[in-house]
Amino acid sequence: MSSSILRPLRRYFATKPGQIPGFNNQAVPPRRPLPPPPGPTSKLGAVTRYSPWSKSFPGSWQTRTFLQSLAYAIGIIVATNYVDSALFSSQTGYASHTEIKVAIEKLRAAFPEEDRVSTNSDVLREHGSSDNSYHPASPHAVVVKPMSTEDVVTIVKIATECRMPMVVYSGATSLEGHFSGIAPGSICIDMSGMDKILEIHEDDSDLVCQSGAQWEDINLTLKEKGIPLFFPLDPGPGATIGGMVGTGCSGTNAVRYGTAKAEWFLNLTVVLPNGEVIKTRRRARKSSAGFDTTKLFIGAEGTLGIVTEATLRLAPRLPTKVAMAQFKNVEQAVNAVQDILNSPYGAHIQCVELLDDRMMEAINVAGISTKPYPVRDTLFFKIQGDDPAIKLTAKTVQSIVKKHGSDRFEFASTDQEAEDLWQNRKHALTSTMGANPGKRCWTTDVCVPVSKLPELVYGTKKDLAEAGLRSTIVGHVGDGNFHALILFENDEELPKVTDAVHRLVHRALDLDGTCTGEHGVGIGKREYLVEELGQGTVDLMKSIKKAVDPLNLLNPGKLYPDTPSK
Amino acid sequence: MSSSILRPLRRYFATKPGQIPGFNNQAVPPRRPLPPPPGPTSKLGAVTRYSPWSKSFPGSWQTRTFLQSLAYAIGIIVATNYVDSALFSSQTGYASHTEIKVAIEKLRAAFPEEDRVSTNSDVLREHGSSDNSYHPASPHAVVVKPMSTEDVVTIVKIATECRMPMVVYSGATSLEGHFSGIAPGSICIDMSGMDKILEIHEDDSDLVCQSGAQWEDINLTLKEKGIPLFFPLDPGPGATIGGMVGTGCSGTNAVRYGTAKAEWFLNLTVVLPNGEVIKTRRRARKSSAGFDTTKLFIGAEGTLGIVTEATLRLAPRLPTKVAMAQFKNVEQAVNAVQDILNSPYGAHIQCVELLDDRMMEAINVAGISTKPYPVRDTLFFKIQGDDPAIKLTAKTVQSIVKKHGSDRFEFASTDQEAEDLWQNRKHALTSTMGANPGKRCWTTDVCVPVSKLPELVYGTKKDLAEAGLRSTIVGHVGDGNFHALILFENDEELPKVTDAVHRLVHRALDLDGTCTGEHGVGIGKREYLVEELGQGTVDLMKSIKKAVDPLNLLNPGKLYPDTPSK
Repeated sequence: MSSSILRPLRRYFATKPGQIPGFNNQAVPPRRPLPPPPGPTSKLGAVTRYSPWSKSFPGSWQTRTFLQSLAYAIGIIVATNYVDSALFSSQTGYASHTEIKVAIEKLRAAFPEEDRVSTNSDVLREHGSSDNSYHPASPHAVVVKPMSTEDVVTIVKIATECRMPMVVYSGATSLEGHFSGIAPGSICIDMSGMDKILEIHEDDSDLVCQSGAQWEDINLTLKEKGIPLFFPLDPGPGATIGGMVGTGCSGTNAVRYGTAKAEWFLNLTVVLPNGEVIKTRRRARKSSAGFDTTKLFIGAEGTLGIVTEATLRLAPRLPTKVAMAQFKNVEQAVNAVQDILNSPYGAHIQCVELLDDRMMEAINVAGISTKPYPVRDTLFFKIQGDDPAIKLTAKTVQSIVKKHGSDRFEFASTDQEAEDLWQNRKHALTSTMGANPGKRCWTTDVCVPVSKLPELVYGTKKDLAEAGLRSTIVGHVGDGNFHALILFENDEELPKVTDAVHRLVHRALDLDGTCTGEHGVGIGKREYLVEELGQGTVDLMKSIKKAVDPLNLLNPGKLYPDTPSK
Repeated sequence: MSSSILRPLRRYFATKPGQIPGFNNQAVPPRRPLPPPPGPTSKLGAVTRYSPWSKSFPGSWQTRTFLQSLAYAIGIIVATNYVDSALFSSQTGYASHTEIKVAIEKLRAAFPEEDRVSTNSDVLREHGSSDNSYHPASPHAVVVKPMSTEDVVTIVKIATECRMPMVVYSGATSLEGHFSGIAPGSICIDMSGMDKILEIHEDDSDLVCQSGAQWEDINLTLKEKGIPLFFPLDPGPGATIGGMVGTGCSGTNAVRYGTAKAEWFLNLTVVLPNGEVIKTRRRARKSSAGFDTTKLFIGAEGTLGIVTEATLRLAPRLPTKVAMAQFKNVEQAVNAVQDILNSPYGAHIQCVELLDDRMMEAINVAGISTKPYPVRDTLFFKIQGDDPAIKLTAKTVQSIVKKHGSDRFEFASTDQEAEDLWQNRKHALTSTMGANPGKRCWTTDVCVPVSKLPELVYGTKKDLAEAGLRSTIVGHVGDGNFHALILFENDEELPKVTDAVHRLVHRALDLDGTCTGEHGVGIGKREYLVEELGQGTVDLMKSIKKAVDPLNLLNPGKLYPDTPSK
């Protein structure tokens, strides 16, 4: 408003005494000439002499009163604006150190039970950083464990009162710094107490659980109960439903079942930044009732709301077998995969994973397998179905890989053989580390249109070799998504690694790909968002964030780049 | 700001002359007593006498100046606020009749070619209403045909300048009044000129097209070019990509491929209400790079942006065969379907459709089939795969339906038989109309958890019979989604139909279902959104709408209920 307040004032001061503000006053002579300028005097004297409060003010009584009034008026406006912004503004900063202490006391009062609120420095550090990522991390100010949606509402209300940023923590498997603390102090909401399955509807192939539940525990429970269903999203071991929603995860099963952005989350219970609890949908498998608010929270990395419960759609759990095919190069492997997926047996391929020659070498060295494999680019297939379907699928796979130049195909005919063969894919990271003792590993992921995958893989291998970095590659090849596991010795080598990751991301973007296929943005990939999507798309994300979380209290500093909006 | 401005004023007026505002002035005697009240005089005289501009103002010079200042301050604030809101407010109403004329002239100037801008009254009416829906409809003020994304930007800019609401029109197959005009006048953006396929990437199984393209034309083009891929979303014939995004459509293939809310739209080009053109993603099959902005527009019914191009993921086009099974009741049919979908051959079921006994009767009467079918609740299956897989699947289906009490199973062994059998499902609406000549038909859809479908069907059949209404039912039974085709004679019967639809929706909501599985909200289902989702979820939708389209120019009056936000 201030500019429009100043406009009439400026117009008024441009008018000479006796003129009517805003009008053409050329023809009107001044009603009373100004007195002659006074003789030499002090600067202060000159100012006070012409002040409307001075007795020697060279104007009429009315002018004097009017100028005084204006000065007072401006004073009143400035003062009330100041009080407004100091007391009521929504744009003030986060809690000061004193206010953080108040917030912690309020949390302790709300959750007096032992182990619900912690300020132990080890706990704060562990909840704010990860051994699997090398992004800058701060400890939290306090860690609090809710046991219910109502507890989360209480926490959100205290955090809002005290202007404390909130970061949700659950599986802690993220690689991009999603749950790092926020200076000067954040509330870490540890969802480990909210890991229950609440309802199982076998007839509808769905279940309701709390967001701290791990996907592996859910599948184990279903198996133990003899329910022939499972939840098919399979990111890293230990990941929880809440984190899987937050990053829009996928995994090895995505080639058959799609990702978290498909239709596996039927409904989410979310605590919004205003403390309101909403459900995004009901339990029907399909709905066209308004915006897809479920999807609003999938991939939002905890910046728009805190997911406390989810309704998961389940898929039939089918028997599987494993096969392996080796190729002269990545291009042959990628082409074979597309042909297999487009064949009438494509739907029986539950997983198809690419392990590059370096990864196969690491598996040999780490000694997971009983016999060493030829060091070649290799595909591992998980085939699902009953026996006749698996046999037909395996036959199709074998003939297609042969057509594409593969000279080695292995089919694990027993469950034990299948288990042994799949171990190689499962323990890719362990093998990489085991084959390179004492080294550290930076894992990153990008995704490109499938036909561009060979170009991406070749370019990356060449670039890493030139940079003098060792790495292995494992890819969800059916979707064009791959992970580079880059090895390094110590902190001095770290910049070399970050530079290589930077070049890898640009290589993916140049191929019409994305900076992350499934790991999410967090802190690590923020800088690429504008380049990948354009300023307009990032600004759209920011306007939605501002509309839903105007105080910017939910996981601030993640997901969005710091670059200003247009 | 006004309340905080008034606060110090109120405090000042509570102070007697000579007292210091805001302090305890009990002990300080008034500096100068007020003059005695004047004798009887005119009302105006009384007001002017006590005015701080009056010479006989009964207070000190300082009080007088201060009160004058206050009056000026209030004057300045009121005036600048008024100027602010008159010139800069975003909340002014829509274009007046004169402004609409200006907008039309601007559109004509921007698109001088023939047939690009139309105000022909027949055209305006046809673009604003539908023969398939009975919701209130207004004609548009003007229909304009863009040929490119840039044209859409031009239209959005003119509409924004002139405050004209915009409604996008393409396939016009909507049943819920999505594209009806907005009084006093809306710009209808007819996308029929933007129906091109722009790029086909066979290696990546995707294509890029304009949003006015029809899904059937896309699949025909792929077939003609010998590309063994297709786009699997199959809503009503004539539907276009833009409309399919808008309603979050699905169709008979959804049981195998999921809906528009799954991962078939890889990227959308959208013109935002501010005239900016964004792309929601790149061309990779997966991405975790920030909010899922693609999904923001899927199901938004054209209220958040105008989709001009889309990148579609394609699926392999596989051979199909058709089978049919008849049951004593809906419950047997529904249970059989879930067992089939959860079997190892579930992924070979491309469609499974339920036609109730009344629908089978209509098919017999309409004479589409060469021989009449028994009038029973019937399932139609489309099975996909190569010959051995289809045979294994058909065998599985046959044994499961038998287990669930079906005594009639037919498998179409030739393509011609399959085509003939599927005709029955395809022409459900035509048969319903053909069997009831002269009647009109209100089609509506709801969706419930699959196990609740029998209860919903029985309840609905009973209710319609009691209301004296004839109807047929056809359902995407694998997803718990069904359509009731309610027949009526004339406008007098219309309230009876709307009441029945109202009860049907409530029946679905009572079963944890949704008011619409795939038709969308439009005008017809707005009133149910708060009941289905809660005020908080609807308010969240409204805040997002406000953040993205602050002038409320994109398809206003659709999707959201008119109920005020909390």
